[in-house]
Parts: sequence; C-alpha cells; structure tokens
Amino acid sequence: MAKRVYFFDDPEPVGRELLGGKGAGLAEMTRIGLPVPYGFTITTEVCREYYALGGKMPDGLKEETVQAMRKVEEKTGKKFGDPTNPLLVSVRSGARVSMPGMMDTILNLGLNDETVKGLARLTSNERFAWDSYRRFVMMFSDVVLGIPKDEFEKILDEVKEHEGVKFDAEVSAEGLKQVAERSKLLVEKELGRPFPQDVWEQLFMAIEAVFRSWNNPRAILYRQLNGIPDDWGTAVNIVEMVFGNMGDDSGTGVAFTRNPATGEKELYGEYLANAQGEDVVAGVRTPKPIKEMQNEWPQTYQQLLQVAELLEKHFKDMQDMEFTVERGKLYMLQTRSGKRTAEAAVRIASEMAQEGLISKEDAVLRITPEEINRLLHKRIDHKAKGNPVAVGLAASPGAAVGEVVFSADEAVAEANAGKKVILVRPETTPDDLHGMVAAQGILTTRGGMTSHAAVIARGMGKPAVTGTESLRLDLDNGIIYAPNGVVIKRGDVITLDGGTGEVFLGALPLVEPEMSKYSEQILAWADEFRRLGVKANADTPEDAALARSFGAEGIGLTRTEHMFLGPERVQVVQDMIMAETSEERIKPLERLLELQKGDFVGILKAMDGLPVTIRLLDPPLHEFLPEPGEIEEQIEEAMKRGASEKEIEKLNKLFRRAVQLQEHNPMMGFRGCRLGIVYPEIYEMQVRAVAEAAVELKKQGYNPRFQIMHPLVGTESEMKFLADMTHKVVKEIFEKAGVELDYKVGTMIEVPRAALVAGDLAKYAEFFSFGTNDLTQMTYAYSRDDAEGKFLGHYVEKGILPENPFITLDTQGVGRLISMAVTEGRQTRPDIEIGICGEHGGDPRSIEFCHRAGLDYVSASPYRVPVARLAAAHAAIKEKRGEVFRDK
Amino acid sequence: MAKRVYFFDDPEPVGRELLGGKGAGLAEMTRIGLPVPYGFTITTEVCREYYALGGKMPDGLKEETVQAMRKVEEKTGKKFGDPTNPLLVSVRSGARVSMPGMMDTILNLGLNDETVKGLARLTSNERFAWDSYRRFVMMFSDVVLGIPKDEFEKILDEVKEHEGVKFDAEVSAEGLKQVAERSKLLVEKELGRPFPQDVWEQLFMAIEAVFRSWNNPRAILYRQLNGIPDDWGTAVNIVEMVFGNMGDDSGTGVAFTRNPATGEKELYGEYLANAQGEDVVAGVRTPKPIKEMQNEWPQTYQQLLQVAELLEKHFKDMQDMEFTVERGKLYMLQTRSGKRTAEAAVRIASEMAQEGLISKEDAVLRITPEEINRLLHKRIDHKAKGNPVAVGLAASPGAAVGEVVFSADEAVAEANAGKKVILVRPETTPDDLHGMVAAQGILTTRGGMTSHAAVIARGMGKPAVTGTESLRLDLDNGIIYAPNGVVIKRGDVITLDGGTGEVFLGALPLVEPEMSKYSEQILAWADEFRRLGVKANADTPEDAALARSFGAEGIGLTRTEHMFLGPERVQVVQDMIMAETSEERIKPLERLLELQKGDFVGILKAMDGLPVTIRLLDPPLHEFLPEPGEIEEQIEEAMKRGASEKEIEKLNKLFRRAVQLQEHNPMMGFRGCRLGIVYPEIYEMQVRAVAEAAVELKKQGYNPRFQIMHPLVGTESEMKFLADMTHKVVKEIFEKAGVELDYKVGTMIEVPRAALVAGDLAKYAEFFSFGTNDLTQMTYAYSRDDAEGKFLGHYVEKGILPENPFITLDTQGVGRLISMAVTEGRQTRPDIEIGICGEHGGDPRSIEFCHRAGLDYVSASPYRVPVARLAAAHAAIKEKRGEVFRDK
Repeated sequence: MAKRVYFFDDPEPVGRELLGGKGAGLAEMTRIGLPVPYGFTITTEVCREYYALGGKMPDGLKEETVQAMRKVEEKTGKKFGDPTNPLLVSVRSGARVSMPGMMDTILNLGLNDETVKGLARLTSNERFAWDSYRRFVMMFSDVVLGIPKDEFEKILDEVKEHEGVKFDAEVSAEGLKQVAERSKLLVEKELGRPFPQDVWEQLFMAIEAVFRSWNNPRAILYRQLNGIPDDWGTAVNIVEMVFGNMGDDSGTGVAFTRNPATGEKELYGEYLANAQGEDVVAGVRTPKPIKEMQNEWPQTYQQLLQVAELLEKHFKDMQDMEFTVERGKLYMLQTRSGKRTAEAAVRIASEMAQEGLISKEDAVLRITPEEINRLLHKRIDHKAKGNPVAVGLAASPGAAVGEVVFSADEAVAEANAGKKVILVRPETTPDDLHGMVAAQGILTTRGGMTSHAAVIARGMGKPAVTGTESLRLDLDNGIIYAPNGVVIKRGDVITLDGGTGEVFLGALPLVEPEMSKYSEQILAWADEFRRLGVKANADTPEDAALARSFGAEGIGLTRTEHMFLGPERVQVVQDMIMAETSEERIKPLERLLELQKGDFVGILKAMDGLPVTIRLLDPPLHEFLPEPGEIEEQIEEAMKRGASEKEIEKLNKLFRRAVQLQEHNPMMGFRGCRLGIVYPEIYEMQVRAVAEAAVELKKQGYNPRFQIMHPLVGTESEMKFLADMTHKVVKEIFEKAGVELDYKVGTMIEVPRAALVAGDLAKYAEFFSFGTNDLTQMTYAYSRDDAEGKFLGHYVEKGILPENPFITLDTQGVGRLISMAVTEGRQTRPDIEIGICGEHGGDPRSIEFCHRAGLDYVSASPYRVPVARLAAAHAAIKEKRGEVFRDK
Repeated sequence: MAKRVYFFDDPEPVGRELLGGKGAGLAEMTRIGLPVPYGFTITTEVCREYYALGGKMPDGLKEETVQAMRKVEEKTGKKFGDPTNPLLVSVRSGARVSMPGMMDTILNLGLNDETVKGLARLTSNERFAWDSYRRFVMMFSDVVLGIPKDEFEKILDEVKEHEGVKFDAEVSAEGLKQVAERSKLLVEKELGRPFPQDVWEQLFMAIEAVFRSWNNPRAILYRQLNGIPDDWGTAVNIVEMVFGNMGDDSGTGVAFTRNPATGEKELYGEYLANAQGEDVVAGVRTPKPIKEMQNEWPQTYQQLLQVAELLEKHFKDMQDMEFTVERGKLYMLQTRSGKRTAEAAVRIASEMAQEGLISKEDAVLRITPEEINRLLHKRIDHKAKGNPVAVGLAASPGAAVGEVVFSADEAVAEANAGKKVILVRPETTPDDLHGMVAAQGILTTRGGMTSHAAVIARGMGKPAVTGTESLRLDLDNGIIYAPNGVVIKRGDVITLDGGTGEVFLGALPLVEPEMSKYSEQILAWADEFRRLGVKANADTPEDAALARSFGAEGIGLTRTEHMFLGPERVQVVQDMIMAETSEERIKPLERLLELQKGDFVGILKAMDGLPVTIRLLDPPLHEFLPEPGEIEEQIEEAMKRGASEKEIEKLNKLFRRAVQLQEHNPMMGFRGCRLGIVYPEIYEMQVRAVAEAAVELKKQGYNPRFQIMHPLVGTESEMKFLADMTHKVVKEIFEKAGVELDYKVGTMIEVPRAALVAGDLAKYAEFFSFGTNDLTQMTYAYSRDDAEGKFLGHYVEKGILPENPFITLDTQGVGRLISMAVTEGRQTRPDIEIGICGEHGGDPRSIEFCHRAGLDYVSASPYRVPVARLAAAHAAIKEKRGEVFRDK
C-alpha cells in the first residue's frame, strides 16, 4: 500500500501530484529550514481512493491520522483535545494546481467547550478564545455539517444589536461566548444531535468534507473551465494553528519577493499587527505597507527578507508568501509563485537572468506570448477600472476611447472632423473597412473571435470587442440598449478593453504601450534560441515599417487586393473586368500597372534588404463590381433622369457581367490563380509592376528582394504555367533594364490538393507558404463565414471540437497535410523555403506546431511579430529539453 | 545502328512500334503464309531520326533502300525503272495506331515516260497505263512537290470537255496520255524543272514526303485529339503494286470476318470486278455483296474464307481486310481489327470465347464499359439518322423523342395529358426535378457534362443533351432559334441522341435496348473475375428494383432528401425548421417519421436480403424553405388582401429564418451531420424510421439489412456522437419490438479531414463510403457549380487539367486521400467495409483506381451497374496480368 501521510519534514521529496500545491510548498519550506507550523499532508491518492470506494474513508486511514497527530503533538508540545495545552489545527484542501477558493478549509479545529477555556487561559485573552470557537462552530457547521452560514450570522447580528455595536470586532467576549453557545444549539436543533465535542470526530469529519469538496459544483465548473482533470483529487493538509492576534508582538501579512506590478526587486506587501488573516479580509483595519515592519519589528523584517531571498533562490521565481508572527516568532504559512502584471513578468524574468538566478532560456520561457502581446497595446489604467456595462469577446487587444458612431461613413466623417470614435455595428463587412480604419476601436454585437471585425481589427492592431450579445442596437435611432436599463446614444463616449472584452461607459484613462528595455532583452534572448524565422503580413509601407520595428525579418505576405481598390482605381478595374478580349483588357491594366508599381516601390523600400513576398490577386472579380441589386437601382435612377441609351446600355452590361460573375460558393470559385490563368494579362501586369519597382529601386542604390507568390495553386500544371509566366516577364524586364536581381517564385499551399502534390509543385516553386485560413476551411469543409455563426460555437461548447480551428491550428488534420507537404516539398527541392502566412502564424500553439513540422518561418500581423518571436523560442527550447509537445 | 529496313518476310517478329500498324499487318500476313504483294518497311525510328536531324534523310538510308528494292525485284521478277518489265510500288505511311487519311500515300511509283509504255505493253491496256501515269503524276506532284491537285484536275476537265464526256472513266487512252503530258508541263512550269523521270529520285522524294506528312497540320490535330504522342513517327511501307483492273478475272474488295453490325459469324463485305480501290470510292459503279463472289469466282471466294479464318485464328479478333485480285490471283493488301457496333462486339467476344478462340478473360476485356453502357439505352436506328439540327454535349446516353416544352410545370401537364415531351431549358435546377421526371429527355443550352441536368439525367437513366450553345431560346414566346435559320416552336417534335449530343428535327425511329444473351454472358464472366462488389445508388423502391435487375449487390447510397419533399411533407418540414426548441421540433418530426418509415419499408423490401446504405439528411435546411425573395412577395400579397396580423407575422418569421439560414458558401456550411449534431432530433427521427421499418419487415418474414450512413463527418468526436446516438436509438427499438437484426453504422468520407483521420473514425465507423463528388470539391477547392461554368472548361482545354476531375477521379490528389483512409481505416478495424458512392463509382477509369486502392465495392446509378461490373472485372484481370495501370 502506498504511503498515505507525509509530514512536512519528511526527507523523501514528493511532488505536488501527491501533496497538492499547498502541501508541497509547506514541505519544501520546512525542508529548506524555514519556520513553518508543523503538520502533515494526506495525499491526493487517498482522495482518489475515497471516491473509488464510493465516498467512504479507506480502512486504516483513521489510525494513520491519529499516529500522525501524535507526532504533531510531540513536535509542538501541545496536545489535541487537552484543555490544559490544546493543539489546534487547520484542515486545508490543496489540489495539484491552485483552485483558489473553490474547495473547503476549516480553521481552529480542536476547539470544544473545554479546550476553549484552556485557550482563553493560555492566551489570557477570553475574547480571542470565544471568537475562535464561534468562528470554528460556524465554519465547521457550514463546511462539514451543511448548515448554511446565514443562520449563524443572524445570531451574531442579534447579539450585535443587543450590545448596540456595529462591527464584529466590537462585540464583547461575553457576547461572543453567547454566539458560540447559541450556534451550538442551532446545530443541535437542525441535526437532532449536539455539535461534536470529540476533537477526533471533528478531525475525521473535516477530512472527509475536504475530500467531498473536490466535487462541489463550483470546483467541477472551475476544473472544466481550466482544463483540470476530474481524477486528480485534492490533498488534505493538517497544520498546527498559529495566531497573529496574540498581542502587539503578533501579526499577519502577505508579501511578494518582488513588486508584482512593476517587477522591481523589493519586498512588497502589507501586514497587520495583532490580527488574523480574516481581519485583513474584513477590511476593518487598514494594513500597513510591509516596509513599515522595518521600524516596528526590525528583526522579524530582516528575517522575512532572508526568507524571501531563500525562497527565490529555492523556487527560482518571484514568490507570494503568507506569514504569521506569533509572539515575535515568524511562521511561514504558504508560498507560491506570485501573480504579476505583464510588465513585472518581463522585468522579473530579465533581472533574474541577469542576477544569475535563472538561465536566459528560463527567462524566455517565463514570459507567455500573451504577456508580450499585452505590452504592445494601450491599456486601461487598471486603477481606474470600474464595472463594465457589458462584456463581449476579447477579439483584438488594446484599449480604445471614443464617441459611439453607427456606420463606417459616420466614422470617417467624425474622424475627419477631429473626433475619436468607436464604430459600433451588428457585424462588419468589407464595406466597413474605411470606417474601421477611421475608428479607434470596433464593437460588434455578433460574430466571434474570427469574425470579419475580429480578424481585420487584429490585422490592423486595432482594439475590438465582438459578439457582445447583451447589447441591442437600434441603428435607426442611434441607440444601444445595454443591460440594466443603460442606454447609450450616438456621440456618447465609451471605452473598450479589447484584451478582456469589457465595455465601459465614459472615457477611462489609458496607459501608452512601450517596449521596455526588459522586454527588448527577453526578445533578444528569444532570438538567440529560436530556429523559426519571423516575418510579417503587411500590405502597406507603413505596416511594413511597423513590422520591421517589431523585429520582422521580412514580409511573408503582401496582399495586393487593396491595390485594385480606392476611388482612383475603381473605374480602371471595372474597365478591366468588363473588357471582352485580352486586347481590350490591356489598356486598363497598363494604367493599374503604373499605380501598383508605386505601391510596390513603397513596400520594397521600407523592407530594403529583406525579402518581401507578394501574393498576386486572389479574390473573385465580382468583389470589385457593385452588387447586381445596386446596379439595378442605378439603372432605374438613370432611366428616371432620362439618361442616354448608351449610358443605360453600359449599366445593363455591367449588370449582366455582375450577375454572370456571381457564384454559389465563391470561396471555392473563380479566384486566385484560376483568374491568373484564364486572364493571364492580370497576373502579368502584377509581376511586371513588382519587377519594374524592384529595378527602379535597384538603380537608386537600394537592395530590393521580391518573391512572387501565386495563390490557390492546386496542380503541378498550374504551378508550371505560373512559374513560366513569371520568369518570362521578369527576365524581359531585367534584360531591358540591364539589371539582374535575385528573386523567387512560389505558391501558397491553401487547398488540400496542393499539400497532397507538394512534391510536384516544388519542381517549379522555390518557396511554399501555408495559407492556413483557407487550408483549414477546405480541410474541414467549413466556410468560416457560415460556420462561426451557425455551428462552430455549438461544436466548441459541446466538445465536438477542442477549440476553434481558425484560431489554433488543427494539428491532426490540417497539420498532417502541412507535414506531408514539408517532407515531400523538400524531397524534390531540399533548399525550398517553407513558411506559414495564415492567421495561425501569430498563434503561439500553432507556432509550436510550425517549429515541430520543420517550417522555416512564420509570418504574422505586425503586432503579433514579438509574440511570434517569443513563441518560436519557446518551441525551440522545449524541443531541446525534450519536453513533450502538446498533441490534441 | 538499329536495323532500318524490315522485309515483309523477315523472320524476326517486330511489332507495330517499329513497323507501324500497316507494315506489321503485312509482315504478319506474309509470315503466316498469306498472299501479300512483296515489299518492305522503313521503321518509325528512321522517321524519328529524320526529325532529329532537322528534316534530313539519314546517311546510308538511300543505299539500304536500293538494296531492299533489289530484293523486291528479285522476288517479283520485275525491275524498277525497266521499261520491259517495270516494277511499280506504292509508298505508304503507317503509324503505330491507325490515323486514317491523315498522312500521305503515293501509288504507281516507278512510272515514267518509258516504263508507262512497258506497262501498256505488258497489260495490253494502253488506257490503263496512261491513266495510272497521269494519276501518279498528279499524286506525286500534290504530295511530294506541293502543287495543288486542282490545277491537274482542271487539265482533266478540259480534256473531258474536249472529248465531250462526263465521267473520268469515259476519257480515251489518248486523252489520258494528253492529261499526263500536260500535267508534266505544268510541273515544269511551276518548278522550273521537269517532272522527275529517274525512278530512284521519285522513290527517295516520296519516302521523305511520307516522313514530312507526320507533321502536316491535320495529322498534328488528329494526334492532339486522340492523345497520340508526337514523337512516335510514321513508318514507310514500300509495296509492289498489284492491279485489280486488269480484266474480268481481276478485282478489289473489302471484307469483315464477321458481321460488324450484328456480330454474326459470316463473311461480310463487298467487291468490284475489274476495278481499283479508287473506283469503289468514286462511287461510279455499285459494289456487289461479297457473297456473290461465290458464283463469280468460287475458288477465290473459298480462298478468302480460308484467309479470314486464318487471320481470326492468328489475330484472335474479327478482321477488316482489303484485297485485290490480279488476273485470278488473290492479294491481301491490309488487315486490321474491324470496327463494330456494341451489339456486334458483345456477340463476337462471347462467341469467340465459346469457340475457344479466346479465353473468357479476353472476351471480357474485349468489351469496353462504354459498349455495355450503349446497349442499355434506347438508340436511334442508325439507318434513319440524317443531319442533326444542332449538336451539344452527350450528357446522358439514350435517345428520346418528344414535343418541345419550356418549363417543368408544362412538362408535367403535357405528360399527364399523355404526351411525350422533351424539356428544353437554359439549364436545370432542383426546381425542375418534377419536369425532368415527366419528360422523355432533357435539352439544355448551357452547362457541361456535370451540370445539374447531366448529373440528374444520368442518375435517372434519362437521355440528355446539354450545353447546346448553338441554340438560342426565346422562353417568353416558346421558340428555339437553331443554326441556319431553323426555328423550333413549342409542341414541335424533336429527337435527342444523348449518346452523341445530336438534336434532330422530327421523330426518328428508336431501337429498344435489350440485354442480349451475349451481354448477359459477358457480364456473368465479368462477375467471375471481379473482386470489387457492385452496388447501386437508389433513392426509391423502383430504382432499387431496377438496380437489382441489373445485378446490383446492394444499395450503396440511398439519399433521404426527397423524403423531406413532396406536397404532403413541405409544411411539416417547415414546421420543423421554424421550431425554436427541441420540444417544438418533436411534433413535426413524429409526423415525418411515419412518412419516412413507409419510404424505408419500400426500399428495404425491394432489396430484401441485400444491404441498403441509408444516408441521413445532408443538404442545408434553407433548401427546404422558399427563397427570401419569394417570401417577400407572399408577404406583399398577404398585406394587399388584408390578411390577419397573425398570418403576416408568421410569414415574417419565415422570412427572417430563411434569411438567417442563408449562407455565403452553402457547400461548406451548416449541412450534413452538423445539422444532425446541432439538432439531434432530426437524425434520431431518421434512424428511428429506418429501424422501425426494418423491424416491421422482419416481422413479416423479410430479411432487411440496413446500414446507417452519416454525411460530412470530419472529426472523431462527430463520429462517436453519431454512432452512440444511432446505437442507442436502434437498441431501444429492437428491445421494444423484441427483434434483433444485424446493422451497421458508418460514414461518408467526403471532407479531406475525414480521410486524414480515418484511422480514428474507424473506431466508431463500421463502414466508409467515399463521397468523391464532395471530396473532389474540397480537395481542389472547386465549387462544382461555379467551376464548370467559369474555368474548368478552360483548364481542360489548355491541358491544365488532364480531364474533368468530377467525371474521372483525380488519383493523384483525391485518390491519395482515399488510399490513406483505406490503409488507416483497416489498421484500426481490419474488417471495415469500404466503398465509393460518388459519381465516380460508375466511371470505368475511376473503378480501376478503386480496385487498385483495395476498396470493397463501388456504388453507381442503376444504369451504370452493368458498366461497373465489367470495369471491375477489367481491373481485376489487368492486375492479375501485371498490366501497368494508368497513372495520370
């Protein structure tokens, strides 16, 4: 039979799996010689045994517990149940990972009608003794006997009223005694038997209650939400009680070994003299900053400083400690890694590495990619945060303040008038793009983490809260109806927190982001460790420059669609689409060439010396024409005002073409390289524009490095056609200019077939870039636009899908295609460059997969570049250490 | 150096790769002792050499040719260029496969001003000699010297006019001599040098001309159309001339060793006494049936019969022979496998196997799946075929006669009135289904081989011609404008040939299909050889019975969508869709259960004892609601007539739901098992209906065998959810009825991810069925509806795709997914049953792949079942023989 009980000073080191977090921490502190009240831990295995027996205490456990208590008595010199020198204990739950407040704890166990008197005598503090007893009766009755607290609190209230006092602390010793007595009577009335006076009975009942609390509803829910297995079970810690309320040489406090807000290396925390932990929580007295201890108890302060240093050295992390001082003696009650802000995390990790406490690798591992992400966005000053008026999905991080507007045009108009606005929509569409650009942030009532609003906002690095379903929009009257009768009107100011999904009324103060020297340091170390390159997705010179400043080593995806948009270009693009022959198409294309060349010059210049991957036109042509319905209206209008027959026929032609270009499933329709093959002039124009831009820059002394990427390739013959075309056009331009530049031709891998024939594509493709957005759509046959609104939520909620595969890469299905393509692409062309440019390129767990699959780089939106640098380092370090990778 | 010249009696057997088809046939006939004019073949390799040298005669070829001619002289006792006994030869092209009329041939070579006189003397026929000479001059000038024929024909016309005669045959010897002389003068004038008199020069020039003719434009086009490689080259055959026009004991003819129309074993053909081949073609004299030779030249006839038998024994196939009789001596000029009708092919193969001439395996291999297919459809009596008024795509085989109607409703109305109609539409949609059922055949002006009309028609076994772009429809006035000013009106009778795509005016006589005893025999043998099972896709008891009669061994796919349609059900289904809770959904589902149970009883009964695979509801719900636009109209109409608020609100609700259910990419949307998981009641109802139907039949003494198939599964958790649900429901029903039946639960594999995780799906799926229609869509990211109209045609035309992947399975991409799923599914569950139910299941080349990939069965539409049986046997036999499978 396995060992069931471990003393805190057990020489055998066992981990938190058996002892739980709290027990392991207490044992660890005991082992390194820190002052810890004595006690022992009943293992999590016993809890599992308890459940395996159908909720029965295992045979022999009582005997083992009694034996263990004997040792505690011996160590403390006190005796359990002995009125002359009573041993009191706390019985505390403690799971493998912290589940704060979810399970039960009982303090002061060992008190009964006799021992309470002994306690009073020993402490010369009758009030303290009776207060301890009445609290124990209430806690035990609530947790172990199942009698709700309110009943007991009612008794306390009555006594307070009777004594004419307001606060618990003002109740007299006699009053508290009365409360204790009446509480016991209540128990007897409720249960038909008196409150247990046998301290052993109390102990066994308490242990069982802690086991039971593993399966209370809030613990179950917490585990579900945090992915904690139901079969871990909780340990039970039985610890000698120490008291901080035994006079002015006693007290209690909490302290961090470093400042959890800034990360500065200093003892940080607060304490209260002559008080127990509960008094701090009750808020009657204001705790003092920990530094004042220096004056009050200089010795204890020095001791605490030493403890802090020892704990940091031992646990190699910033610690969050609980301590009690009983009559001048310091007891450590708990230690654990301290929670901290992202800024603090970065500073602590960086400084600990500088101090030699941890390695650079560990420092890098300490920072989560999301922490780095948080540092890159404006945040609401957390001191100013009140209650949100509504909470939606944290779709795109950062905070934004502005006046509410309800349409993209309005957003642009108000922004042009110098106002800061928040664009509020049911959901956004490509038509809202200009409004999103103009707005400080975006708020939608529908759509998920991967809705149009969310994706575009993240790409722009703009805060967004989506799917805020508790808000109801009345667009006609410009009103948002929020819960609790709150009404927000057009022009009212609100604040969004895109990192939490919260929506606040009014303008909350924001804190500007900055890359501190500490985060720069962490990222520089990350760069030393990572194998994956990190590029950025950027469509404009501005985005490219931003990405470069964040450490991007190139552009992995420049989309060219926007180069077909804009007021100056719309008519030209329409002329191109309406052309009926290649010849007719040439003229508008020549005009577009001039315009796009300028665009490419800008981006190549911004990325001078670094590679820029340019994806040729991808979306279906109909996206560049008005909707048929819209054209119909134009025709009606034209007829009404008696327009010329020629004009009307032109509109009719436009209408017919728009109808002709409509598709049943545009996602799988006439787009990408299919356009470029059926109308070769379009892609030729784009290649020419890129090559001419590069030649121009080269002549100016720059070092432009372009890579032409063909979208939606699915067959070897497509790839050959496109590569031949590209080389032919580029060669012509180079020859004419007398310039020779290195460049590459490659393809997106975004339809499953491309992955399946990657070995053949690599004959002509010098690089692959996985377009995992589309690849995920096709592999699952999920149209993202439809799935997220219709069934994806249900699927994730019911566990049919572990997570939204558009956010975290599906390694099993999509990932398998990727791995096949990597292997077979390299078989054909060993030096082929392979990356990813789907949104997954900025998702840490997906980046881990990319590392494992042997990709050369990931490409993410500019604001995700630092995140990707860090995540890539994590993957490399974990691999080096042989850590098991997550597998769904 | 390889041997360049092979004599017909060369003992070394070389094949048609080197000798071409004609040369190999002549050599083969010579080798088995048949009377063949002597000669030799210059190999195809020399042709390739000629082109490799940039169009130059290889060194030494002339010398070898001269040597070979010496041997011909020796064998024939004649001498090339010798006026006293001149040897004349034909110089003929001959590629590896027959390219009829595509390349050049020169007859009577060796004639010049001197030898023509010798020929006249030897034959005592001056007219014959001069006629031969003037023909030779014309042919040589045309083919070798490049002077167009018309010039020479003009000379002949002038002479005829001068002599006052009408036909060439009436021109006098003197006249023909004049023609020859003037023709030579014309050549001298055109070329500035006289017509070559040196017979060797003639010969070398002719050989080179034959080589050149391999690359004349029509030969190149023919090769493109027939997939013949450009680098095969042609052989050159140089053959002693024999003459059938040397008197009444001479003649020429063609004969088949069996009747090519019926397959009956008899000599079949025709001949002309005292004639050359050209005379038959000229059509001046009518040839006599071959059987009359029995009277005219009984000995020669017997000899021909013996030759026929010998050739069949040797080539083990029905032969198409050309022969000439010169002064009573029979010469065989050519033999090749004879073209034949599908009926003849089946009878010949069957009888040859019975005769022991070929094996049963060979008999099965002789019949192409398409020949079997042709036998299953009504055909136009080919004797009655005139010129079609238009030609579209041969979308669904069979012939149909009927009156033209322009809408589905019209088709139903007219059919109900007892008329036979042809439904003519621009293209069809699911709304036209009832009209397609009512019509004899379908004609569309748009859409390809895989358009809605084509697919549905093939499924129904109904003739269809699609994409007839030369027809213009005026639907408003009920008129079809055909080419050449032909106008077809509503009610006019037309005839469609769905096997050729032809459209005829009026009612052509049709021939009823029948499975002759010969085809039954061939298919019975096929069943002995095949390993693949053959099932059918059938949605109704009628289709199931039909499939069974064609040899289906079960139903591989019963779609259940139609069970949600029909006037009686529409309202119930709408109620189900409009329900807002599971509870509300139950009532209409109970009603549907009763109706669907009846449907399942019908099918299970028709397939009693054989397995029936039932696929649960697949299409998105919005397909069962009216279009939003339609509902809007209903609302307007209701408001006009002052309908109750309640009624209008109901319509409004319907409208909102219809809008809500609309999708951007319905193909990848909320359909298939996604519906069944989000609304479990629907699938539960279907499973219940199937199981209750089976129980009912079992109690009546039948042996129902059902398999529940879940569509669009992509994850293990979906499969588990669905399998658990199915087993639970079925178990309940069995327990309640006290009946126990074998059944299976399985899934379609139709999204790429399903193939990628097939090993996991097989934990819960007892069978897989590849839905290759959708799998092809998703793997390529081709929406079939969009691709076929927009770029697929271009892709196939330009060779980007070797063929339409919706017709013939893409073995490289989609096929790879299939193979992975088969391997990994079997690893998990060795006895898993694996089939295919996409349209590819009826396509012979795809069936070959299915065999190779190790599937257990294919499932095809009822009319394709015999095709599949044959194709499956072909695959098995080819594999056994180690024949290399086609690989794209």
